Amino acid sequence: MPLPVPVLPEGVDPAWLPPAAFRAVGGRRTMIRGSGPLVETVHGELAEACRRFGGRAVRDAVPDGAYDLVLGLGGDDLGDEGFAFAREDGTTTVTASDGRGLLYGLFHVVRLGEAAFTGARAREVHRPALALRMLDHWDNVAVHPVMGQVERGYAGGSLFWEDGRARRELDRVRAYGRLLAACGINAISVNNVNVHAAEARLLTDRIGEVAEIAGALRPYGVRTHLSVSFAAPITLGGLPTADPLDRTVRGWWAEATRRVYQAIPDFGGYVVKADSEGQPGPFAYGRSHAEGANLLAAALEPFGGTVHWRAFVYDHRQDWRDRTTDRARAAYDHFVPLDGEFAAGAVLQVKHGPMDFQVREPVSPLLGAMPRTRLAVELQVTQEYTGQQRHVCWLGPMWSEVLRFRHEQGLSVGEVARGGLVAVSNVGDDPFWTGHPLAQANLYTFGRLAWQPDAEPGAVLDEWIALSFPDALEGLTGGLHAVLDGSWRTYEKYTAPLGVGFMVQPGHHYGPSVDGYEYSPWGTYHFADREGVGVDRGVASGTGYAGQYGKPWAELYESPDTCPDELLLFFHHVPYGHVLKSGKTVIQHIYDTHFEGVEEVEEARAVWGSLTGLVDPARHARVAERYEEQLRSAREWRDQVNSYFFRKSGVPDGRGRLIH
Amino acid sequence: MPLPVPVLPEGVDPAWLPPAAFRAVGGRRTMIRGSGPLVETVHGELAEACRRFGGRAVRDAVPDGAYDLVLGLGGDDLGDEGFAFAREDGTTTVTASDGRGLLYGLFHVVRLGEAAFTGARAREVHRPALALRMLDHWDNVAVHPVMGQVERGYAGGSLFWEDGRARRELDRVRAYGRLLAACGINAISVNNVNVHAAEARLLTDRIGEVAEIAGALRPYGVRTHLSVSFAAPITLGGLPTADPLDRTVRGWWAEATRRVYQAIPDFGGYVVKADSEGQPGPFAYGRSHAEGANLLAAALEPFGGTVHWRAFVYDHRQDWRDRTTDRARAAYDHFVPLDGEFAAGAVLQVKHGPMDFQVREPVSPLLGAMPRTRLAVELQVTQEYTGQQRHVCWLGPMWSEVLRFRHEQGLSVGEVARGGLVAVSNVGDDPFWTGHPLAQANLYTFGRLAWQPDAEPGAVLDEWIALSFPDALEGLTGGLHAVLDGSWRTYEKYTAPLGVGFMVQPGHHYGPSVDGYEYSPWGTYHFADREGVGVDRGVASGTGYAGQYGKPWAELYESPDTCPDELLLFFHHVPYGHVLKSGKTVIQHIYDTHFEGVEEVEEARAVWGSLTGLVDPARHARVAERYEEQLRSAREWRDQVNSYFFRKSGVPDGRGRLIH
Repeated sequence: MPLPVPVLPEGVDPAWLPPAAFRAVGGRRTMIRGSGPLVETVHGELAEACRRFGGRAVRDAVPDGAYDLVLGLGGDDLGDEGFAFAREDGTTTVTASDGRGLLYGLFHVVRLGEAAFTGARAREVHRPALALRMLDHWDNVAVHPVMGQVERGYAGGSLFWEDGRARRELDRVRAYGRLLAACGINAISVNNVNVHAAEARLLTDRIGEVAEIAGALRPYGVRTHLSVSFAAPITLGGLPTADPLDRTVRGWWAEATRRVYQAIPDFGGYVVKADSEGQPGPFAYGRSHAEGANLLAAALEPFGGTVHWRAFVYDHRQDWRDRTTDRARAAYDHFVPLDGEFAAGAVLQVKHGPMDFQVREPVSPLLGAMPRTRLAVELQVTQEYTGQQRHVCWLGPMWSEVLRFRHEQGLSVGEVARGGLVAVSNVGDDPFWTGHPLAQANLYTFGRLAWQPDAEPGAVLDEWIALSFPDALEGLTGGLHAVLDGSWRTYEKYTAPLGVGFMVQPGHHYGPSVDGYEYSPWGTYHFADREGVGVDRGVASGTGYAGQYGKPWAELYESPDTCPDELLLFFHHVPYGHVLKSGKTVIQHIYDTHFEGVEEVEEARAVWGSLTGLVDPARHARVAERYEEQLRSAREWRDQVNSYFFRKSGVPDGRGRLIH
Repeated sequence: MPLPVPVLPEGVDPAWLPPAAFRAVGGRRTMIRGSGPLVETVHGELAEACRRFGGRAVRDAVPDGAYDLVLGLGGDDLGDEGFAFAREDGTTTVTASDGRGLLYGLFHVVRLGEAAFTGARAREVHRPALALRMLDHWDNVAVHPVMGQVERGYAGGSLFWEDGRARRELDRVRAYGRLLAACGINAISVNNVNVHAAEARLLTDRIGEVAEIAGALRPYGVRTHLSVSFAAPITLGGLPTADPLDRTVRGWWAEATRRVYQAIPDFGGYVVKADSEGQPGPFAYGRSHAEGANLLAAALEPFGGTVHWRAFVYDHRQDWRDRTTDRARAAYDHFVPLDGEFAAGAVLQVKHGPMDFQVREPVSPLLGAMPRTRLAVELQVTQEYTGQQRHVCWLGPMWSEVLRFRHEQGLSVGEVARGGLVAVSNVGDDPFWTGHPLAQANLYTFGRLAWQPDAEPGAVLDEWIALSFPDALEGLTGGLHAVLDGSWRTYEKYTAPLGVGFMVQPGHHYGPSVDGYEYSPWGTYHFADREGVGVDRGVASGTGYAGQYGKPWAELYESPDTCPDELLLFFHHVPYGHVLKSGKTVIQHIYDTHFEGVEEVEEARAVWGSLTGLVDPARHARVAERYEEQLRSAREWRDQVNSYFFRKSGVPDGRGRLIH
């Protein structure tokens, strides 16, 4: 029985799967071969598309040459998720070894549109570069009085949890799984890595609720994972300890995990934030993080599950007076000595940069220093530090830079991420899914880069535009590309300069506060004084962080003469008069980029304004309203940053513009 | 029937009324003359004291010369609250025209202790200088998720409200009324001036709960007032408007007020925060604040009640780029044009300074500019900006300076405050009442200064010590005096310098953040750049605020040469090298005071440490623990402020001390 396509609740935006995206495939005669749940999903998709566009989808009939499209399970070993695509003699064929591969093949055809049915195409095999392409939802079951329901969420409440339990109506979750499949994401962790009391119990007596969600996601090939608390044996199990080497603790986890798999046979595994920002962990028992992670890996191993152990461990009670401690060093210092000690089922999940998802950071040196450990790379799709979905900030180019970066061994970050590419989700129960409608492009791009880390982000953007606006009139495609393509660099221009990071309002992280974290315990400093600004992270005279890199990066970052401009203040404290490779002084660069950034927002807003009538009115209005806020905020950033540095440096703007 | 003395719940500190404070009076033969509820209160106090210390208290017996103390209602007109005190031929007499006067007379005797029964004393008449001596409790019925139950409260939850309604057990409220009577306070507003939805209804269907509290306070001469919402006719009455000139609105307030007096015949009146920080007010209808206040005064007039209308009106959405707007000007600019327009039953309640209870502000110019308006002066006993009851900061000297300050007309602030002296309470359900046990001294001192604004604060402090520690062993009295007496100036030294104000963490206002409010909409700036710091509020070149004063202050404040050092940065932006009257430069003053402030805290902590064994252990431990936090925080203040100004000015400390 073909699985009916999930129905979107009234008023919810179809994102990149509007019905019209299926026009080309829906008008064809299609044959589907094979069996299994995901084949029924494929059939359901095609049946719905054909119903709408007049085509016909049949099952397992004898081929008679009259089919435009044949999708079927075939003999080649294409893996769980791979598929082959070809076109010959007027018939397009998609072959896969597994239903999931077939589903991805179908969405490949959808993306191609008419091009999938034109001319001839030699057989191409598509396989995801990374087996795990995962979203971490920082969703809480309960609504936190300050953080709201979704920690760092800017798109309303949780998609999964409502009124203190799993949603009873899961159509929207099913539709979410469908959107994820269409961009290649195959796993979700359904609760916050900061595991509070109610959420801890999802592991035990509330696992049935997780199973309900897993059931809604499964037809689109999305597996469910769970964030758990390292202290669960104490808080849930009543044991006196959570020591990972304690036999009763190991037994408790084994039994708890067995019950999880009873409820969810294809359960993906655990996500753990341990000994970080107040969460419990193995340090309390004098055990290493490898010992902690291996405890959970052992419990999951009989079932093929994986533990994702976050490497986000640092001292968040640092003394700002102590310039020798460097938060950027922390993940490397903590974890590199453990390389080779993690079990096969333990994945170390590493933020892409050494700090915390700033608009510009160097790539984490840890990613080049643990060859004997399965690593996952963590990105942040939710725009915590990049405008909180009130600003347009398409992060594709940044992620692409990260994924293509090569450490000493010659592997790119995308190749190093054998444990998967993971991102913090930007989705909530907002009608547009992501608060800012254009932030959907970030989610889509993440999925596609997880499938193929060396993809051209601009091409992915165009894919997203074509799918989301399949009936785009003249000018719309170019306009959308224009407002999104440069938006990350625009955001970088009007916020913290030259890689120095932060300068945000403490706590909520929206809007400027140049000294907001300067004297705080969080380890996020810029050290601006009347002579200069930046953090000396060199080996010769600074914190030594630059020495965590191999060649050529250690040498390159060590000297302000060779350090790339965009990371200069991350690695060096330089005088305001220091001349950049661009030929400008640091202070003039600060002024210029801040004026330019605001001008670019003004231009983007004007481009968006010119698209009235080409975009659905509700969507246009939502974006237009957010541009007003983005512009207000960008001006605030410009004026605070420029005033701050003018007051400190005393250097006037070379172009005589107004600085308050 | 003598009224039994309220019993303190187990574990609650007796504050300045420990049983031993009654030793002198409790050992005497006392006669009480007269009748009425407060005479029964007096009798109850004496009966309890005599029970404990072996004296005897009788009622209306024929005098036989054998009484040590005679308290009675007499013929002289001493007013509601005055009393006469004399001692002759071995008998001490207290005479009053009203029971309240008699109660205050009794506490006068208690304060004198043995001295009340020694030698001879000519008749002295004591009358409060101010008829209204009031505490505003910023208590909410419900617990606010961020602010807690008591806004700016640092002593636990509310004394009055629990589990969403008035406490059912009111012994502690009775005991509170008794403490207040003993220091002269005679009125309380029982809910927050920011009136939320649940609290708005105290005016109408929940007035019975207010009546319960009023009943508990009445036996100690404390009247109850209520904060109300200007929008009540709409939100509670269902009217389409709250326009003060609308006939139905006036009728609604008249009827609501009539019902309040039905429930509480001695109700004091309303407190209103209107058109301020988001609260509703008359501006919405194009009406003046006099029209708004007079609306409520008219409703209260038939019953003799008063409306306290707060003058805390300013633009809290200011643009920091606009240097012409000056929050300090706001109260004067708003209200002085209305002088003479307020009804007799309307009191304009003015914060003592033009900003918001900073550790140092000039006296509000409004207090010298509205001779035809009844003014109340508002102080803040709760230590919002002065260490939040984690720091010792005895505010007596500051309040005394304010109350003795004379504007042009020659009247002191204490004399101008014909509408009363009002303070935001520092009390909660904490076992020590005020969080920090030594913060009790602030509450006591406020009451005594409200009774006599020109009292010597040091003498009041010694009174508080003698009452609170009646069995003080050698060294304790001096030690207590030492840690409290200079504590305000110590706090001033290590926080924002020279009257500039703020530099606190936004939102909660605890701990330093030099630029915390610098680019904010709240109008609280210091404008520090690499040349200098401070706000030019002169007439010649600044915001003109100094011109709001009469002679001699306008001239004095106008020039940096004559402006008092401690207010220099409030009135002037000066170079770091500006030489103070003290002979030091501004920058060296900043460094020196910040080092000194911390040293003084270290010394005070050592003095406190030396008192171990002389103070009740629980109290000693609580204070000792808070000294640790005060010292940590004072060092943080020192280091952040010094580093900030060193980074900006580039001027090294003249004494070569460590600046980070």
